[in-house]
Amino acid sequence: MKVFLIGANGQVGKYIVNLLQNSDEHTVKAMVRSEQQAEALKQTEVVTVVANLESSVDELAKAMEGCDAVIFSAGSGGKTGPDKTLLVDLDGAVKSMEAAEKARVKRYVMVSAFQAHNRESWMDSPIKPYMVAKHYADRMLISSQLNYTIVRPGGLTNEPGTGNVKLEENLQRGSIPREDVAKTVVASLNEEKTFRRSFDLMSGDTPIKEALKNI
Amino acid sequence: MKVFLIGANGQVGKYIVNLLQNSDEHTVKAMVRSEQQAEALKQTEVVTVVANLESSVDELAKAMEGCDAVIFSAGSGGKTGPDKTLLVDLDGAVKSMEAAEKARVKRYVMVSAFQAHNRESWMDSPIKPYMVAKHYADRMLISSQLNYTIVRPGGLTNEPGTGNVKLEENLQRGSIPREDVAKTVVASLNEEKTFRRSFDLMSGDTPIKEALKNI
Repeated sequence: MKVFLIGANGQVGKYIVNLLQNSDEHTVKAMVRSEQQAEALKQTEVVTVVANLESSVDELAKAMEGCDAVIFSAGSGGKTGPDKTLLVDLDGAVKSMEAAEKARVKRYVMVSAFQAHNRESWMDSPIKPYMVAKHYADRMLISSQLNYTIVRPGGLTNEPGTGNVKLEENLQRGSIPREDVAKTVVASLNEEKTFRRSFDLMSGDTPIKEALKNI
Repeated sequence: MKVFLIGANGQVGKYIVNLLQNSDEHTVKAMVRSEQQAEALKQTEVVTVVANLESSVDELAKAMEGCDAVIFSAGSGGKTGPDKTLLVDLDGAVKSMEAAEKARVKRYVMVSAFQAHNRESWMDSPIKPYMVAKHYADRMLISSQLNYTIVRPGGLTNEPGTGNVKLEENLQRGSIPREDVAKTVVASLNEEKTFRRSFDLMSGDTPIKEALKNI
């Protein structure tokens, strides 16, 4: 698959770029916000396109033309202001979905947030506005025509990946290395069992490919 | 109709309370956030219930039990922080829709914002985060099972109402007295032509009832 990656400069995104770049099955087209970011990635021979989640659906659709899948791994992460949360994590995400439909990119893998589907779990969260944005972005994806997978990882760490995970509709809170999130996202691209499915993701005892097959 | 009003203390909401209170067709149950607000309304014999858009769907459903319609006229209006915009204008609104479905309240009239459906019109707006929240609240309402009407008024003024409006799917920007917004919202409750419809609303030359019939 030719994969359009949104959020290539993020901490999870950087792992995804490497995995796709070294894959036999996939190639990557990395969306970045500036020429400067594009130059940095070109040094490593990554194909890039400069575009912005705050621009129009048409511009995003043009950027992803000819791709087979979108991975959305961008995010303000709850640390930027809630205005950016609304503009990027919600409206930016949904614009990328509409762009995918417009550009006839059928597959869409979303990096969401742990328990984003379950409002009760973040009623008192300090990052509640961020969770609201992720919640509605996911709901818009589910109601779209896209063949989606929504991956909701637990607390992200910078530990090296183990390649072993646990994934289910609902899990207890735990953590997972960013590297394993990236591996799970990339492995899900072609795994039919994940089509039109959403799941929490945590470190665990099952190899990623096996865990995805048994979902 | 027994109408559950969310946002009874707002500037438009106060007009709606009066209209419903003096109506032969309707009664009002006004949702307020505090006992203090409830006391103030009880002085004028308005039926109140204390509830909060940041509480759970179940609590909201319980508050609206036995009502025939919901009017949503609450709003941070773009002046509070964007965190409240996410929690009230988006998540609060959608929770009230889910509560209405749960409590089997079938009719839902939303006071939205001018051109909220048309992303291109607010790309550069200073209240873009607010517009994003209203946009997705409206989209969630459209995809719900509720019999909705979405009213998108232009710039709100405190002039006395004229009773004459213009309403269409898309209008040029203009203004309208809050009193006329309230009258249009209340008049739409029983007007079948407005069922499952959305429209921009502005001051104009046509009496409200006639304008609603001719939409």
